[in-house]
Amino acid sequence: MVIVSLPEENWVAALADVEGLEPVLWDMTDAPPRGDIAVVVPPYMSNPKRLARLAELPQLRAVQLVTAGFEHAVPYLPAGVELANGRGIHDTSTAELAVGLAIAAQRGIPQAVRAQGDGEWLRLAGMPSLADRHALIIGYGSIGVAIAKRLLAMEVSVTAVASKARAGDDLVEQVHGINELPALLPEHDVVFLILPLTEATHHLVDADFLARMPRNSLLVNVARGGIVDTDALVEACAAGQVRAALDVTDPEPLPPAHPLWHTDGVLITPHVGGASTAFEPRALRLLREELAQFAAGAPLRNVVATGSR
Amino acid sequence: MVIVSLPEENWVAALADVEGLEPVLWDMTDAPPRGDIAVVVPPYMSNPKRLARLAELPQLRAVQLVTAGFEHAVPYLPAGVELANGRGIHDTSTAELAVGLAIAAQRGIPQAVRAQGDGEWLRLAGMPSLADRHALIIGYGSIGVAIAKRLLAMEVSVTAVASKARAGDDLVEQVHGINELPALLPEHDVVFLILPLTEATHHLVDADFLARMPRNSLLVNVARGGIVDTDALVEACAAGQVRAALDVTDPEPLPPAHPLWHTDGVLITPHVGGASTAFEPRALRLLREELAQFAAGAPLRNVVATGSR
Repeated sequence: MVIVSLPEENWVAALADVEGLEPVLWDMTDAPPRGDIAVVVPPYMSNPKRLARLAELPQLRAVQLVTAGFEHAVPYLPAGVELANGRGIHDTSTAELAVGLAIAAQRGIPQAVRAQGDGEWLRLAGMPSLADRHALIIGYGSIGVAIAKRLLAMEVSVTAVASKARAGDDLVEQVHGINELPALLPEHDVVFLILPLTEATHHLVDADFLARMPRNSLLVNVARGGIVDTDALVEACAAGQVRAALDVTDPEPLPPAHPLWHTDGVLITPHVGGASTAFEPRALRLLREELAQFAAGAPLRNVVATGSR
Repeated sequence: MVIVSLPEENWVAALADVEGLEPVLWDMTDAPPRGDIAVVVPPYMSNPKRLARLAELPQLRAVQLVTAGFEHAVPYLPAGVELANGRGIHDTSTAELAVGLAIAAQRGIPQAVRAQGDGEWLRLAGMPSLADRHALIIGYGSIGVAIAKRLLAMEVSVTAVASKARAGDDLVEQVHGINELPALLPEHDVVFLILPLTEATHHLVDADFLARMPRNSLLVNVARGGIVDTDALVEACAAGQVRAALDVTDPEPLPPAHPLWHTDGVLITPHVGGASTAFEPRALRLLREELAQFAAGAPLRNVVATGSR
């Protein structure tokens, strides 16, 4: 029997019938309910410090996250313990918000919402459609692919960029390398960010990046706030160089007095890309598949790190 | 030579090379520039009264609209003159806004916009995704089909309804008849209205219709305001029975003091479904095709009425 801890009662119930698996409830706020837990599924969005409790489990073999981001968990990983991320779980929810933010920003929905508060029927004709735009998707993992699928159905042309150039798929002819960005940016009027935050991608979007985007083009960030130099973005938006639709910011949460809130052409949602009702059924589907495999002796499929302390 | 009037200078230029066609500029505000105009393309959005000038053209044979709606033009149509609508021109723009309104309403974008004004990072987790919803598209003409295509790419299940039941297409197994609505409504949590306004569809969405929708479900209207009984909608939204995302209202424009502006769960855009940059290239493509055919002796393809006065 593989003992696995899950942070929600209904998740425990949903996995009760998986052969070889014994699910127990643990949201990591208190000490573990038993010492022989082999796999921990941490809560979806909680203080990463709770992960310090992983050290209390001598028989721990793996941590299965239900988020795509995993950087926060690496420092807490005991030696030899594998960390798997929730690749795929958030594709639907995040891609949907990315496309929704892009349509909203292009078609003037934020302006309409503000006018609605004043009982004002705006003159909004001639706004730029998302259709016919040239979109650049920076980060072409599973969420990037999900964004591309939706954009193609909306008559948007799509160019994909990943850390290294590679062959295309059934959606794009080729995947460009991130080193090609300086040449690609001037040719694209909507840029989607959905790449991991690493030392290499921190402040990828700086003053130079923004200056290369066409005037009045749109930046959509559904990745991590730190990929964008916020000061440079505030300046570029205030100058009318670009517009921005941001589900993530740096800092986050954005403090009440931060100038980004009131910069022209900026639409902000409070980091809810993955946090919709689309999350849970997909999380349970992945946990079921991964943990059944693991209980049967197979490795987890989305291992992204192994503890070395 | 077929003399055709066009309301925009760049449209005249765009059609100058079509064989057998002589395009002239006329936006219908003043008397016609010449008496031998055979086809009139009225301005996109203008006072319908301008259409009274059609009576000043003794050689008029046809009016080609660049809107899907045509009811406004029928009363001005001289005897024997054919009226063709702009079927297809607005599919892309309107379907895009319909989907954008639905995502915005589901994922809390209006709430985020209002919170942004206050510099407030909202707690918005767990909002209902558009994905996984059961959508009912009422009106399955070319815009309805365009909405269906986009929804399917977003993992939404789609049921189509038209005035009469018929066989399906590559998107839906069957098209239900509008008489089946009472049974269909309780099973669908997002309802898109994209049917023509006629005597039969006026106030189709009344208190009974709204009561049959599941609690907290969403009504998206990108058709005509008069299809909805506004008073009944205000009541249903205020009671938390349904939410609404409306690009059209009745009356329109909505007066500043109208209660609909400030009803809970209502998102309003000012009738801009068709009015984006996606419009012009598609309008010119249709005008080019239709007028080239007409100049070559073929009939217009989208004739919806013939003048009888």
